[in-house]
Parts: sequence; structure tokens; C-alpha cells
Amino acid sequence: SSILAAHTSSKSDSSGVSNSGESSKESSRCSTPVLDADRTDRLRDKMKRRIESGDRWFSLEFFPPRTAPGAVNLISRFDRMGSGGPLFIDVTWHPAGDPGSDKETSSMMIASTAVNYCGLESVLHLTCCNQTKEKITAHLNKAKRLGLKNIMALRGDPIGKDWVEEDGGFNYATDLVKHIRCEFDDYFDICVAGYPTGHPEAESYEDDLRHLKEKVDAGAHFIITQLFFRAETFLKFVKDCRAIGITCPILPGIFPIQGYHSLRQLVKLSKLEVPEEIMQVIEPIKDNDAAIRNYGIQQAVEMCKVLLASGEVPGLHFYTLNREVATMEVLRQLGLWAEDPRRPLPWAVSAHPKRKVEDVRPIFWASRPKSYIYRTQDWDDFPNGRWGNSSSPAFGELTDYYLFYLKSKSPKEALLQMWGEELMNEESVYEVFTNYITSQTNRNGHKVMCLPWNDDPLAPETNLLKDELEKVNRRGVLTINSQPNINGKPSSDPIVGWGPAGGYVFQKAYLEFFTSSENVTALLQVLKKYEPRVNYHIVNVQGRNTTNAHDMQPNAVTWGIFPGREIIQPTVVDPVSFMYWKDEAFALWIEQWAKLYEDESPSRMIIQYIHDNYFLVNLVDNDFPLDSCLWQVIEDMFTLLDSPPETQKD
Amino acid sequence: SSILAAHTSSKSDSSGVSNSGESSKESSRCSTPVLDADRTDRLRDKMKRRIESGDRWFSLEFFPPRTAPGAVNLISRFDRMGSGGPLFIDVTWHPAGDPGSDKETSSMMIASTAVNYCGLESVLHLTCCNQTKEKITAHLNKAKRLGLKNIMALRGDPIGKDWVEEDGGFNYATDLVKHIRCEFDDYFDICVAGYPTGHPEAESYEDDLRHLKEKVDAGAHFIITQLFFRAETFLKFVKDCRAIGITCPILPGIFPIQGYHSLRQLVKLSKLEVPEEIMQVIEPIKDNDAAIRNYGIQQAVEMCKVLLASGEVPGLHFYTLNREVATMEVLRQLGLWAEDPRRPLPWAVSAHPKRKVEDVRPIFWASRPKSYIYRTQDWDDFPNGRWGNSSSPAFGELTDYYLFYLKSKSPKEALLQMWGEELMNEESVYEVFTNYITSQTNRNGHKVMCLPWNDDPLAPETNLLKDELEKVNRRGVLTINSQPNINGKPSSDPIVGWGPAGGYVFQKAYLEFFTSSENVTALLQVLKKYEPRVNYHIVNVQGRNTTNAHDMQPNAVTWGIFPGREIIQPTVVDPVSFMYWKDEAFALWIEQWAKLYEDESPSRMIIQYIHDNYFLVNLVDNDFPLDSCLWQVIEDMFTLLDSPPETQKD
Repeated sequence: SSILAAHTSSKSDSSGVSNSGESSKESSRCSTPVLDADRTDRLRDKMKRRIESGDRWFSLEFFPPRTAPGAVNLISRFDRMGSGGPLFIDVTWHPAGDPGSDKETSSMMIASTAVNYCGLESVLHLTCCNQTKEKITAHLNKAKRLGLKNIMALRGDPIGKDWVEEDGGFNYATDLVKHIRCEFDDYFDICVAGYPTGHPEAESYEDDLRHLKEKVDAGAHFIITQLFFRAETFLKFVKDCRAIGITCPILPGIFPIQGYHSLRQLVKLSKLEVPEEIMQVIEPIKDNDAAIRNYGIQQAVEMCKVLLASGEVPGLHFYTLNREVATMEVLRQLGLWAEDPRRPLPWAVSAHPKRKVEDVRPIFWASRPKSYIYRTQDWDDFPNGRWGNSSSPAFGELTDYYLFYLKSKSPKEALLQMWGEELMNEESVYEVFTNYITSQTNRNGHKVMCLPWNDDPLAPETNLLKDELEKVNRRGVLTINSQPNINGKPSSDPIVGWGPAGGYVFQKAYLEFFTSSENVTALLQVLKKYEPRVNYHIVNVQGRNTTNAHDMQPNAVTWGIFPGREIIQPTVVDPVSFMYWKDEAFALWIEQWAKLYEDESPSRMIIQYIHDNYFLVNLVDNDFPLDSCLWQVIEDMFTLLDSPPETQKD
Repeated sequence: SSILAAHTSSKSDSSGVSNSGESSKESSRCSTPVLDADRTDRLRDKMKRRIESGDRWFSLEFFPPRTAPGAVNLISRFDRMGSGGPLFIDVTWHPAGDPGSDKETSSMMIASTAVNYCGLESVLHLTCCNQTKEKITAHLNKAKRLGLKNIMALRGDPIGKDWVEEDGGFNYATDLVKHIRCEFDDYFDICVAGYPTGHPEAESYEDDLRHLKEKVDAGAHFIITQLFFRAETFLKFVKDCRAIGITCPILPGIFPIQGYHSLRQLVKLSKLEVPEEIMQVIEPIKDNDAAIRNYGIQQAVEMCKVLLASGEVPGLHFYTLNREVATMEVLRQLGLWAEDPRRPLPWAVSAHPKRKVEDVRPIFWASRPKSYIYRTQDWDDFPNGRWGNSSSPAFGELTDYYLFYLKSKSPKEALLQMWGEELMNEESVYEVFTNYITSQTNRNGHKVMCLPWNDDPLAPETNLLKDELEKVNRRGVLTINSQPNINGKPSSDPIVGWGPAGGYVFQKAYLEFFTSSENVTALLQVLKKYEPRVNYHIVNVQGRNTTNAHDMQPNAVTWGIFPGREIIQPTVVDPVSFMYWKDEAFALWIEQWAKLYEDESPSRMIIQYIHDNYFLVNLVDNDFPLDSCLWQVIEDMFTLLDSPPETQKD
């Protein structure tokens, strides 16, 4: 039975499963059903696996923004560009810009945001020139604490002309690489820079190659090159690197030309020469931005095709200049932009190493994942498999910082246009909600693109419920979160699918809304008819909580069944965390909406009234194989409200 | 909104959910989705809840068996009678019989078995007369260690006639109650005996009532009475107890008369008088056992009806004399016998307090739950929610004790009749498996009621697969475990349902079998076509393991979705524990089957050959909404085997 023998040996070696009771006694069991295998590994391992499988990747470079609104914009860009599936992003480091500080515009905080809030594997640049050992170590410790795992080790530009080497100081990137490996052992993955045409300050191309070899030998894991304009420049460089024994991955730095002036400036800074054939095309169209961008895209695509075809290039690194159109277009044309719009989980994953096992969250934060990540950032353990396995999760406070940092992407003027310069009454508010649902323009001609609880337009999944949602919002059932019931759709479903191939996803119908106390009184009457099919929690801003659910037992409302895995239940309705969410949900009325208006203004008082008097309600229909009964519940509530008073008492 | 106010206050008080972030910071989260709320509570709490809800219960008394086979029988009886839903059972204590020892016939071990292996809430009797404090404490410590939580505190019969009270010794049950409360605080629930007609040695009925009051005041939680023959005897006793301030539950001891001689003996021992009206019926039929038993059933039913109708009796306690027919019949006629044949979980629950959160197990032990419980008895934590959350579970060794203790219920002669006095070849073995599946008589006229891996006839669920199983066993695919795929049947389904009402249960199709290495060679060829739909593990006795599954990730094969709960996934195919199961599954060939035959006999050598050369295979069809493809896999394997050799290589 030779076939069998071949099969047997091929698998048994790698399985590591012992056949006796002894050896696995000490082995630490890791049976976490991690959905995305990439989440657990180090960047070098991910690269290794991709190289082995021939699966090409791309990465994206950004620089830190100058202003706080710029930071908000960049984070939105991370989300959009993250959906294309970069293997990692990197954030540059400019010593003059206080890059290691806690300011939301610092390199450190931008990289941390990318990891923690946008779920992106990130590389933080770090320069060492003119820095003390203590300062460098402090930066690295802070990076580690924030969940950063990768450093691009650079010398950086010396400040002033009369810079000379310091004995025992950080004179070259090699010193920094050595320091990182010495102080942090194997913790960080380290990237270093390569210069396809030699470093401008190097004595020679060969001398520069030797320096690169030193950096790699000191412990760097991969190389990203400076930009270049011809594929052969890079390919020769790789060949020369291999010849002197550099074996790690070498990633070409791709710079899609996006404008005449940015090209000139970059070339000047990097002391590169633009090839004649490119200048000849560009000069005649230098005042036509669109033409130059189109040329830049075409030129980058052609060069990348040559690079990829060479077999020497496992991944492409893009200098984005913090813009997205050109890079995305190049990647689309190369077929590297991920076309799978499905979520890895029904919420945004964080790339912080602490959170690698996290796979369940309360549904309440479905539209505010960054807020959830922020409020749980101090947790030591994250629920894995079942909500509440981690002991005593306590949510972080609602601080001003949080309210600033995660505030709406839209400026105040836009919000006023969407939500009304002036509110007349509660119905004006109902209208805002209804317009958000229908995405029709309001009476001032503006589309309502967001609400305080939803910074983005309606999810495709929620769109399935649009007609029903419109109907109830119009009557003052102000919905802020909902999902349809799903009874075993393929995990590949473009609207409700998530997770690995070959699986099935399920949901219980969920509806969460603010509504008046009169409505709640009727609703509670009506809900008696729906016991035990419907679970509810009803709470006002003071925390008066009415529920028919178990005090401590969460209700799984989203789950998936996948080949060869345990069940994943990413979202739950959890009674304990609902009380924390309640504080946040009510606070958003005031912080994001009421404060748009003058103190004591009627508009502000209307929002304040709603905040003070409305209830926050959530409903789960447990009978997921049947059509959701939640719309009927609301319908029954309105019927009861419309009926003569004496019938309301029964 | 008065309706609202009423609702709000009624629930918010009991919820204990805080509305601020602070108070739950320290609170230990308990979000275990325990299926049977009874599993977590103390016996006194269960009684309290049942009394409040008016839900009457019954309990069953057994005495320890004299012989090891008697112990095996009694454990089977626990399983059968446990399915009727007793609130608890109790095991008597006879100082002369070494009741605290480790022998499988001791009171201690029988009670421990009932708790740990049969999942029954159990009360261990303990007598104190002529015992040292140290000995008593040692017994109690041992009981606690074994997972026992309830003690029936008794004085016991003094040994010898010249017994006198010892100063500071255990002269009365009260002393024992005090000692338990003193040494073990509130750990044990304590039961004491009541004598409806007064203790035979008491000075008076009133004096005896005062003693009972002392026992309760010392810390007993409930009372079980000595047997009696008239309902009014008990009802007067309860009234008298209440009158002197005894408020705890008082359970009547019911003795269905089962035979003339056992009645005479019992009456003599307990110094009770049998009422004239009973003797008048019994004397004329004293040689007709059936007639007496029928009378006993009828008499007990009548008396119990009066007791239950009185409103004074929350539960009935039965002196079973280790027999089941009479008591079960009385309970059926009273409507107290649980008619729900569904499993609480798809495996036997243990009542050990350590295991109260356990809700997932490897499917391999589905037919051998006691073995699983035995082999995991030293675990400190049990998987809850997800398999492998508890760190490094190591399975206990296969010891002789284990092989004895959990051996077949059938004696050697019966096994030989079922499995063959003499085996001719491997096909003889196939026939045994096939006869087990079809439950037809074999060529010697005996039904095969069990196999080494299945001590009971085919489960109703497996019966659904009978025709397919017969077909493959006939050809040497020797199945030992299987389940059909289930795509969302109601949890109330009589065959595949389990868990709370209103839920839905699911399964992936599973098939586990032994088969020859030739078959496995073909199977591995065939399985390539079924990637990634089918996961497999294939292993021989040496542990050569071939699999296409992740090394460490379990595959959930049974799960349930219930109102207001997290997902429950009670069974998984776990790669690590499969290696432990493999040892057990192969050992059963030898220990239970081969050893029936003489050393060196052809029959023994046939079993030994299978043991040495066959493979153990498990298959999971991940695509649970579709018809199982596992039969097609086996079919394809046979087709390949039947095809000319050259086509087998493709």
C-alpha cells in the first residue's frame, strides 16, 4: 500500500500530535478557531507563507498628517484602503514633528490607530540619527505597548551640515537594528531601506550594498527599496543583493507619478534622476494634472507587470503620498486589489496582538467598532468563543478625548445641513432618521449620510430592511441598529456572508431604537404576546432597565458554521454591556447633536428632551428560521396606541 | 404611564445590573449558558424552587450491592431510573460493609458513581455511632473530594447491647449534624430522618419530635421519614412538626410492598406494625408474588395521591429495595415519571460540582460517556463553550481498574453467544457488526445487543442510518459511531432534540469505523474528490495519523441555538483527543473481545490481526444542509477497489 504510506508520512510529520498520553500533558493547547490565520502570525511569517504559495501582496506607505482633521481623514482612508487587502501599511517618522508623542497626528499614534482601530498590520518607521539610546528605547517600548510589532529602522537625515559620527552612538541604521535586537530580542519584525541606485551619500554602489548586507546581518527581516523608474534598475539590484548573500525578501518601492510638482520635489529630495523617456512624456502635459496622473498609473502598471513577471518580486510597496486614487487604480489593474467586500467578522477586527483571539462582541457597537475598541483597550483578555469567558470586562469611561477622537467625519456645517439648522419638534428628528434610512434629500436639499450612532451610510445588509425601517422611523421608532434574520446563507454571500469559504452564516433578527415612554408603555403590553420568542431590554438614560432576558446570559445573534472549525458567534446581545452602551448611546444625542445648537435654543432643548425622556430598546427574535416578527411587534404597538383607551388596559 | 412603572420596577430590582461603569468592575461575570439550571444549584435550592413553583418531585433510595457484578447492575439501574427524573437518589450506609472504602461496592463509591458517572444528585447516608471524630471527618472529606454535596446524617444502630452514651462522642444524629456544620460550614446539604410514629427507642412520640427539632436546629436542611402505611400517619406527623416550629421540607418515605417476605423482614427491623387492613389483603395471596406486587403498587399509588392532594407534600421518597418495576409503575401512575426521553445534552451529564460548566466533549466517547468521565476525572477545568479553552487536558491512563469498572454489562457467556464462540475469519467479525446494526439473530439464534464500543443497542438517532450502516458493515467498514446530519430541527424533536424549549439543533454527518489498510488506501484516493467538504482522521494502532484537518482545531459536529442564550456546541471532533480515544478504541478489541478466547486460539488471532492491521477512521461531512455525502464516499471507495488495478493509480 504505497499510496497510503506516502499520504501518511506527508501529514503525520507536520501534525505534531502524539499518540500517547504523556507528551501533550505539558503542551499548551491552542484551539482558537481564528478566522484569519494571518491574525496570529508575525509579518515575516505571513511573507514567508505568501512567498511559498506564490500569492503576491502589496503594502502602502503613509506619512503622518499635520492637523487633527487630517488625522480623521487619514483614518477613513486606512479603512477604505484596508479593504483592498494590503499585507501591511507603514507610517513614516519625521523627527521634527514630535513623532513619538501622544498627539493624534504623531507617527506613533497614527500607526497605533492603524493597528488597533483599523485592523491593519503596520510598520512604524523609526530614525536614530542624533537620538539618545534612552529615547530610542522609550519609543520602542511605547510602540510595543500600543501593539505595534514591526519597525522600519532608518538612520534619518542628520540635522545640520556638520554632523559627525558619534562613538557608540546611532550613526547608521545598522546600529538601530542591533539595538532593537539587543533590547527587544525577537519581538519586533525589522525592515530596512535598500537603494537600487545606491544611497546618495554612499561612496559607491558596491559600498552601499555592503552596508545593506550589514543591516540584514544585524537582524533585519526584509528590505523595502527607495523608489525607482525602471524595472531593470530594481531587478539588477536584487541580483546584486543575492550575489553578496542577502537572502531576505526585497520589496520594490513603487511611486505612481501623481503630479508634476510632487515628482520634481521628490526627485530633488531623494537625489534621483528621472529617466529621459519619462520627462519627455511629462513635460508637454505638466499643467494637466489628470493627464499626468493617468500617465503615472499606466507607467506604474507597466513597470509592476515586468517586476511581477520576473519572479523576483513577492510583493509591491506603494508610496501613496496619502492619496488613494492612483494607487488603488494601479492595484486594480494588476488584479491585486482584493475584490471580496465581505467582512472577516461582522465587525472591524483589531490587529493588536492582545486581541488576536477575540471573536465575539456585543452587537451594540456594530456601527461604532472604533469606540468599542477604544473602550476595551485596557482589557487583558478578550472574549473568545463565548462572551464573558474573560473575567470582569469593564468598559472604559466616555472621555472627552474619546469623543473628540472618534467624532464624526463630517464637519459641523455638514452635520447641521443634514440634521437641520433648526428643529421644530420631535417630528423634525423623526424626519432626520427617516431621511437617513431612505437616503433621500431633506427639505434643504441635503442627503443625510450619517447619524450620531452611524457615521456611514446604511450597510447593504440593513438596506434589506429599508422599507420597514422607513415606516417605523416615520412614526418615532428611531432605529440605530438592526439586522435581518438569516437562516444558513453561504458564507460567500456578498451581503450577509463572512468568514472562510464553505461555511454557513446565521442571524437572529435584531432591532434597536429610541422611542418615547408612551410607545414603550404600549410596547410592553404587546410584548407579552411574544414570550418567549422575543427577548427585550428597555432602558432610559437613568438606567431603569426592563427585560425578560436572563440577567447574565448573553444571547448569540450572529453565528457561523465552517468546515473543520468550532462554531463562531461574533455578536451577542449582552445584558451587562448593554448598560455601558446605553450611556454612550444617550450621550451621543447631546455630544454630537444637541451641542450643534446654541445653549437654551429650541433645537437644543428638543434633543435634550428626547435624551431625557426617550427609552433605548433592543429586541431579538429568537426564532431565526421564521420570518422576523419584530415588525409585527411594532405594528401591534401602534395598533394598541391607536385603539380607544379602554382596550389598552387588558 | 403606570403600566410602565409597574413593569420597570418588577424587573429592575432583581436584575442587579448596574447603570454605571463602576460597580460591575469587580463583579465576577458568570455567563455560562448552563442548560439545566438545576446543575448549578444546591439540593436545598432545587427543593425551594420546586416548592415555590408547585412542581412535585420524587427521590429514590438504594443500598450498596454486595458483589462487583451487583455494582455493575446497580449502575445500569441508576441510568434507567435516572431517566425518570428523580430530584435525587440516596445510598445507605452500613458500618459493617466497609462503606467508606474504595471498593466498587462501598456506599461511598456507589454514591460517587451516581454523581459522577450517572449525573444524579445524590445523598450519601452516614452513621456516627461508635465512630471517631477523625474517621467521620475523613469520610466527609472523601465525600467532598468525590463531588458529593449531600449527607443524610444518622445515628445508626449501636453495635452490641451494652452501648452507652460517650461524653463528647457521637451519640445522636444531632451530634453528627453539628459536627458537619462545624467542620464543613455550609458545604453539605444535610438530611435527617423523621419517624412518623416516633423512633422505636424514643421515650415518647413527643420526645422524638423534640429530638427531630434539635437535629433541624443543629443545621439539617430537610427531613425524610421512615416508611408508614397510612397517609394520615404522615400528615399528622407533619402537622406536629410544624406545631413545634420545624419549617424545613419533610419528605414521606414511601415503601411499595413488593413481596410478603421482604415486608415481614422490614417490619421486624423497623419495629413497625402493618395495619390490619393490609395484612388482611396480603395473607391470602402471600405465595403469589405478582399479586402482592400489584397490590403494593395500587396501595402506594392510593396513599401517594392522598399525600399529594394534602398540599403538605412537595416530594415523595421511595424505598426501592434496589428494584425498579414497582417504584417506576407507582411513579408512572402518579404522573411523576418524566416522559421526556430527550437528552439534556448529547451525552451523559456528570453531577460533580467541578463539571457544572462542562458543555462540550469529543464525539468519540458518545457511546462511552462513563469512560470519558473516568478518563477526565482529574481535570481541574472542563471545556465550556469551546473545546480546549481549558489548558492542556490530559486524559487518564487506561488502567485495569478502568477496564474492569466500565466493562460490559453482559457476562462472558452472553458475549460469546453474541460475538461468536469461534471466529472463522475477518468476515465472521463483519457479521457480528452487521447483526448488531440490524438487531437480527445471528446463526446461533442470539441477538447482538452490544459491541465492545457500544454497550447498548443502537440509539434511535443511529437507527435512522440503519440501512446504510448495514450495507457498509457487511463489507468490512466496521462502524462504531455515527450520526446523521441535522439542519435545524426543533429542540423538542423526540429523536435528535435536546436542550431547552424553543431552540433548534444541528449536526454534521459523522461516521467512525475500523477498516482494513487496503480499504484505507482506496479511501484516501477517493477523499481527494471531497476536499474540503469532508474532514478525515485515519490512524492505526501505532498512531500513524493521516488527516486533512487542522492539527489543533476541533470541528463542531453538534450544536444548538436557543432563545436568549449563546450557542451550545456539545460535541466536537478534536484531533488531540482522537489520539487518546484511538488507544482506547483499539484496546477494546483485545480487552473485551480477543480475551474471550484462549491464548493462541484462531479466534483470538483473528481479533489480534484486526487490532494490529486495521485503521480507525473518522469522517465529517461539513456541508450539513445537504444530504450526507459520507455514504457516497464509502461507495466510491468500494467502486475503486472493485475496478481494475490500472485505474486505481490515477
